[in-house]
Amino acid sequence: MANQLTYNVAVVGATGAVGQQMIRLLEERNFPIKQLKLLASGRSAGKTVTFKGQEVVLEEATPESFAGVDFALFSAGGSVSKELAPHAVRHGAIVIDNTSAYRMDPDVPLVVPEVNMDAALAHKGIIANPNCSTIQMVAALKPLYDRFGIDRIIVSTYQAVSGAGQSAINELLDQSRDVLDGKEAECRVLPVGKLPVHHQIAFNAIPQIDVFTDNGFTYEEMKMVNETKKIFGDDTVQVSATCVRIPVVYGHSESVYVELKQDYDLNEVRALLENAPGVVVVDAPQEQQYPLATDATGKLDVFVGRLRRDLHHPRGLHMWIVSDNLLKGAAWNTVQIAEELIKARA
Amino acid sequence: MANQLTYNVAVVGATGAVGQQMIRLLEERNFPIKQLKLLASGRSAGKTVTFKGQEVVLEEATPESFAGVDFALFSAGGSVSKELAPHAVRHGAIVIDNTSAYRMDPDVPLVVPEVNMDAALAHKGIIANPNCSTIQMVAALKPLYDRFGIDRIIVSTYQAVSGAGQSAINELLDQSRDVLDGKEAECRVLPVGKLPVHHQIAFNAIPQIDVFTDNGFTYEEMKMVNETKKIFGDDTVQVSATCVRIPVVYGHSESVYVELKQDYDLNEVRALLENAPGVVVVDAPQEQQYPLATDATGKLDVFVGRLRRDLHHPRGLHMWIVSDNLLKGAAWNTVQIAEELIKARA
Repeated sequence: MANQLTYNVAVVGATGAVGQQMIRLLEERNFPIKQLKLLASGRSAGKTVTFKGQEVVLEEATPESFAGVDFALFSAGGSVSKELAPHAVRHGAIVIDNTSAYRMDPDVPLVVPEVNMDAALAHKGIIANPNCSTIQMVAALKPLYDRFGIDRIIVSTYQAVSGAGQSAINELLDQSRDVLDGKEAECRVLPVGKLPVHHQIAFNAIPQIDVFTDNGFTYEEMKMVNETKKIFGDDTVQVSATCVRIPVVYGHSESVYVELKQDYDLNEVRALLENAPGVVVVDAPQEQQYPLATDATGKLDVFVGRLRRDLHHPRGLHMWIVSDNLLKGAAWNTVQIAEELIKARA
Repeated sequence: MANQLTYNVAVVGATGAVGQQMIRLLEERNFPIKQLKLLASGRSAGKTVTFKGQEVVLEEATPESFAGVDFALFSAGGSVSKELAPHAVRHGAIVIDNTSAYRMDPDVPLVVPEVNMDAALAHKGIIANPNCSTIQMVAALKPLYDRFGIDRIIVSTYQAVSGAGQSAINELLDQSRDVLDGKEAECRVLPVGKLPVHHQIAFNAIPQIDVFTDNGFTYEEMKMVNETKKIFGDDTVQVSATCVRIPVVYGHSESVYVELKQDYDLNEVRALLENAPGVVVVDAPQEQQYPLATDATGKLDVFVGRLRRDLHHPRGLHMWIVSDNLLKGAAWNTVQIAEELIKARA
């Protein structure tokens, strides 16, 4: 057997909630790394991270950081991606970008490996990772889309605070402790750090993720609408979303109603999902088994349950879709794209 | 001005989460009480509760407890209502029952005062209070139902643990503390106390409220389906529900998609809701104002926001409906029915 090829990998945003998961996955999955470069902002430069028993020193991300890099995994915010991804491409790296910077760029494929890996193979240097809430939904719906077609999707989300980063995790934990202790909860981060108004997330549900657009939907909701169309390569799929932050640390849950284009048999739907890559069916209501955010935490799969026919619409189907938003929703989908690119070359 | 008539009122289930709110409301609203009788199980008999500065001793609820009672407000579980409500009626009391015991009984009106107070006036001794998640939804949809008609409703709920009683509140608070302290969370109550499997609610979302029916929906979900039809007196209204418990103590939130029968103007919808009794519109997305469970706690109203047109269906409308599940969802709706009956007699 030939020696396995190895690659120089850069992680941009190595100190963030997603960046940390990327590093952990590269280690756990024994990604074929020649050299790992951990890039962050200037104020984190010089800190060290342990990778496979070795200390790796964080470097400040600059346009010249990417010389010799094969895969550059970005998760340091949209403005960093906008600024540095073109430099990474110039140096010959394949960029897999976890921010929203390039998602709707017609020259950039938006990829969930289980759905449209073919699009990734046609990249021009940058591949975009979809929004977390979109990824888990389309991964679960893909086998139904292929078999029956999809007319419309109405989704309400139950999203974990980790989707808003480490500061939001800290806020939920701090507020929870304060409320339990009978103190006032301090609100500084959620729903959107940069906006003026902040609401308590502990023991609450906030129907705002990202800023509002003119049509009354938030950007997070519009991401689900537009990204779903782009990933399926089908502008006719109608999505309406309500995105809600709830006091969960890890794991997004989604209540999904889907109208298929054809009549369906529920047993066939279950069988299709059971055989779908990356999807695990947890659906035994009489044993009270269904996907839960706490069970999905740390897992790479998308979990699906509460499968049931709509009571009225003959092609209507309800389901409950749960996945770890930092993993399949972000870090794992990114690393998985890199793994699949390597496999496709082999 | 004539002396105001006063009434003998019994609260059955006086120690429960809802019973306590009923007593508080009777006091705060200065309900015209001649004598207040607080009834509970045998093990609570002898305890005292303060009402308007007086100690009231709890008595064990028996068939003869209702002699001379004008209004008997029940919230001690369906089996207690089944057993004792007929005795209260025999003694001449009007029963307003907060349990599910009589809700679908064709001889018992199921009442939300803002929607169908006329049904309450035609009672035969027992009036049923709908399920909490139904009440707030139909109260908000009533003006739209009257003006445009409703074809279908697809609702996903974000329900507070107080809907499952004081033991569920304690469980959420205990588990939250344990998780924050890095301890294992003990699960004994939720999702359904009497069922064998319990799941962690702290920092989680449980897509099960009440037990499952054969069609894959839970009883809680089917309550929303069937009670909505009965309250509107219209079997053609199609409801599909996904009911989810989240780590919130007080206040149910609902993501509601509704398809009206006629085209609508969003400004007219807003105006109708602003003028609807018991409904408060909180809908200024650019100022990040929308209903929140924490804001609704302790309030009697139903709060509505996130009003927006569906992106695809011309008669589709999305909204976010929040109310205190122990108040409008239970204790207040019950006391309100009694108040309205008194007004109707005057």
